[in-house]
Amino acid sequence: MNKQRKTAITPTREENYAEWYQQVIKAADLAEHSPVRGCMVIKPWGYEIWENIRRHLDKKFKQTGHQNAYFPLFIPLSYLEKEAQHVEGFAKECAVVTHHRLEVGPKGNLVPAGELEEPLIVRPTSETIIGEMFSKWVESYRDLPVLMNQWANVVRWEMRTRLFLRTAEFLWQEGHTAHATKEEALEETHQMLDIYTDMANHLLAVYVIKGEKSERERFPGAVSTLTFEGMMQDGKALQMGTSHFLGQNFAKASNISFTSKEGQREFAWTTSWGATTRLIGALIMTHSDDDGLVLPPKVAPSHVVIVPIIHKEEMKEKVESFCKNLKEELESVCFAGRSLEVLFDQREMRAGDKAWSWVKKGIPIRIEVGPKEMDEGVVSLYKRTEDAKASMKMKVDEIKGNIASILEEIQNTLYERSKAFTTSRIALINTKEEFYSYFSEKNKDCGFALVHYNKDANIEEKLQQDLNVTVRCIPFEMGQEEGFCPFSNLPSSQRVIYARSY
Amino acid sequence: MNKQRKTAITPTREENYAEWYQQVIKAADLAEHSPVRGCMVIKPWGYEIWENIRRHLDKKFKQTGHQNAYFPLFIPLSYLEKEAQHVEGFAKECAVVTHHRLEVGPKGNLVPAGELEEPLIVRPTSETIIGEMFSKWVESYRDLPVLMNQWANVVRWEMRTRLFLRTAEFLWQEGHTAHATKEEALEETHQMLDIYTDMANHLLAVYVIKGEKSERERFPGAVSTLTFEGMMQDGKALQMGTSHFLGQNFAKASNISFTSKEGQREFAWTTSWGATTRLIGALIMTHSDDDGLVLPPKVAPSHVVIVPIIHKEEMKEKVESFCKNLKEELESVCFAGRSLEVLFDQREMRAGDKAWSWVKKGIPIRIEVGPKEMDEGVVSLYKRTEDAKASMKMKVDEIKGNIASILEEIQNTLYERSKAFTTSRIALINTKEEFYSYFSEKNKDCGFALVHYNKDANIEEKLQQDLNVTVRCIPFEMGQEEGFCPFSNLPSSQRVIYARSY
Repeated sequence: MNKQRKTAITPTREENYAEWYQQVIKAADLAEHSPVRGCMVIKPWGYEIWENIRRHLDKKFKQTGHQNAYFPLFIPLSYLEKEAQHVEGFAKECAVVTHHRLEVGPKGNLVPAGELEEPLIVRPTSETIIGEMFSKWVESYRDLPVLMNQWANVVRWEMRTRLFLRTAEFLWQEGHTAHATKEEALEETHQMLDIYTDMANHLLAVYVIKGEKSERERFPGAVSTLTFEGMMQDGKALQMGTSHFLGQNFAKASNISFTSKEGQREFAWTTSWGATTRLIGALIMTHSDDDGLVLPPKVAPSHVVIVPIIHKEEMKEKVESFCKNLKEELESVCFAGRSLEVLFDQREMRAGDKAWSWVKKGIPIRIEVGPKEMDEGVVSLYKRTEDAKASMKMKVDEIKGNIASILEEIQNTLYERSKAFTTSRIALINTKEEFYSYFSEKNKDCGFALVHYNKDANIEEKLQQDLNVTVRCIPFEMGQEEGFCPFSNLPSSQRVIYARSY
Repeated sequence: MNKQRKTAITPTREENYAEWYQQVIKAADLAEHSPVRGCMVIKPWGYEIWENIRRHLDKKFKQTGHQNAYFPLFIPLSYLEKEAQHVEGFAKECAVVTHHRLEVGPKGNLVPAGELEEPLIVRPTSETIIGEMFSKWVESYRDLPVLMNQWANVVRWEMRTRLFLRTAEFLWQEGHTAHATKEEALEETHQMLDIYTDMANHLLAVYVIKGEKSERERFPGAVSTLTFEGMMQDGKALQMGTSHFLGQNFAKASNISFTSKEGQREFAWTTSWGATTRLIGALIMTHSDDDGLVLPPKVAPSHVVIVPIIHKEEMKEKVESFCKNLKEELESVCFAGRSLEVLFDQREMRAGDKAWSWVKKGIPIRIEVGPKEMDEGVVSLYKRTEDAKASMKMKVDEIKGNIASILEEIQNTLYERSKAFTTSRIALINTKEEFYSYFSEKNKDCGFALVHYNKDANIEEKLQQDLNVTVRCIPFEMGQEEGFCPFSNLPSSQRVIYARSY
């Protein structure tokens, strides 16, 4: 980083990563805290990112045979209690509805009235209520599989909140499926993980590691939880989404049973899988720099902004009409399945301020058009992946033909950077001493550690207490080798990913 | 109606309209009641209708400069209280969150714990919380207008619920805007009403009457409420959506103020407008018949179903491959901005049962393909708008070229039927006696009454008590003439629509 230049975001990543994150969000106008404790307001630039993620995933879900539906916001307390581990996992953080109206109280102010016979929980996740519906819909093997998804809001009461990463209310999709066999349910669990990781790689340009959670980190009530984890620029892991194989646990709790081909009554095998607005947090923390947000073109609300440079009022009309033509031209280009979204910034503001506002909002390409360049038939094109002041001159009649490949190049650059950063920060660790030293406060370059593991939750507990480090996943595509757990010296058949995490 | 033939839905509309409605929804598998009091489950066929409505409106909102955002589910009680009429309107029907966790109680069961200092209301609508945010965002006239929309769930506790029409939780969009002048806000209110009515006419094929609500029927806190009302097949009115001019009421309550061009501090002028899953109820009740749901092609989840007729097992492969080709051919056709959605029904089931299942689901076109017709190069095409057994033979090589115009014709037929039905049931009523006789129990053909009106809420109150009839709207495009209110004999400058309603 050039220390001479003042960065657009204060503090920088190096100075204070957590605060930098908040400032990037503020400068890009993505979201803000609301006066309602723990709840955020997602602003248009942030919400459009979510719409793009939603559109991408929704299409993949439908292509793999899933259908959207909508289930109730409220879950009766007794439903939540049907699965013992499940209710234990969520009891400490749920919003409880106890009354259904307001009336004037003794002090003249409004107070809750109409107490409910049974409290309702604002859904923290919907396995229990959806399971109840499945149990009514499934009678025979012919009714299986049931493959459903819902786009919804959920609430998990959080004391310490952070925009996108941890909020009391968040938006997500939750898929819920029921199958006749264990094999089919397992296959579904893996298929959905693959859809997620493909989205992370190709839409968000985030390199991720996929694997299985350790027992300690599993979803409450699941038999196994698959996850994909990204490495943020501070080396911490971010769980970006999960896919759960629920075995017959929830089918038994909700009585989802069916008559098999052979005429036997059997419990179904179920799965659930979800991804949330947290993905936007991952996106921000993976790509952004000290000048603000950086957006991969495929998920960016807009791809290009055109900024007119007008020094003399009499040139205004000519430059603006040139810009409008350019905008129309570019909008006819198709990129990654949708028409280019091109903005023309006509605000009454200094051109330099405009340019910086777009740098901070992370738009992939900025095109500046001044009278001089216009006369020469060239414009200045700035890629957000390069220094904010490094432009390339481009002939106007070449832009249209080249813009899609420039965007593709930006998308690839971001993915390659994420991949290079992550893989360069995965250390093979073989001893306890190395481990403690790697995760010491002093080691600024620490990221993930790939370490042998022998499934002892007590060791995980201790490492979390000592270092705030946990098993992020048992990876599918690395660490497959025999060895010994450095903490217990017991045999291990697989290295796992340890890291600090969000 | 042919009384000889047994209808697919029991009871018929004539026998019991309310029960017929429930049975149409059940037979089409659109939605069902959940075990959570007042909350429905929207099933895939119903949810896809909502997705089509959403896509249509979302595009129109964006074309008119609105942006999507997302605001908190919870509203602090004190916020709701900021506008006196507003809180009075919603206090009797709101879900109140009072605790944020569960713990084991004295009897060993889980009980609410962690009482909140201030109760939170699950949003029944979001004027107060969005107003609070607007007040932070708006400083100067340059920040105006603010044009926002959110797609969300809301809760209004209802004791008597009815699928789609009246449920405790429902899905909707709510637009909220702030403007520098009264004129601009009024213009916005009308613009959004026009977008809604255009959607009702062209997407849902429902003829609607637009107008303004009487003071008594206004949204709590609004200066004026615009509405569009459809007439259902039992002659009752259904309010399909509303657009509110809020004046400066909410701007004052939430302190949305700005510095004008002239340097004065002024309150903004705000609007809000919403349409809900109730639109699906309107769609069902307008078009469906005694054989079940009837869907206008533009809003139907799928346009065409192909049903193979296989009498002999050895013909199966040949017929199926023919059907698959036909499906592919038709899917390349574009209708109303999207590719045709074509289903091929391969279920193991009698062809007759399949056919009836699609009649009940309201699919616009059913194509039956048997070996004999196949050899002749023709298929049987059934339009849902005609008798379930009336088919037209069509040459295979002509289907592709004609399918879009057949769908267009179905869409128009449904709209024309809705318009003819509605306009034929609007009676000009001039005396009190005529009015009471028109709305008497005996008059099966009663619909809307167009009656002079003199803004007396007491008269409205009495007519509601006597006949359960209310002012549905002061229409914009009918009844503009001088006369006398038949109940008060006072002068009136405009006839209004009186009707029973949902």
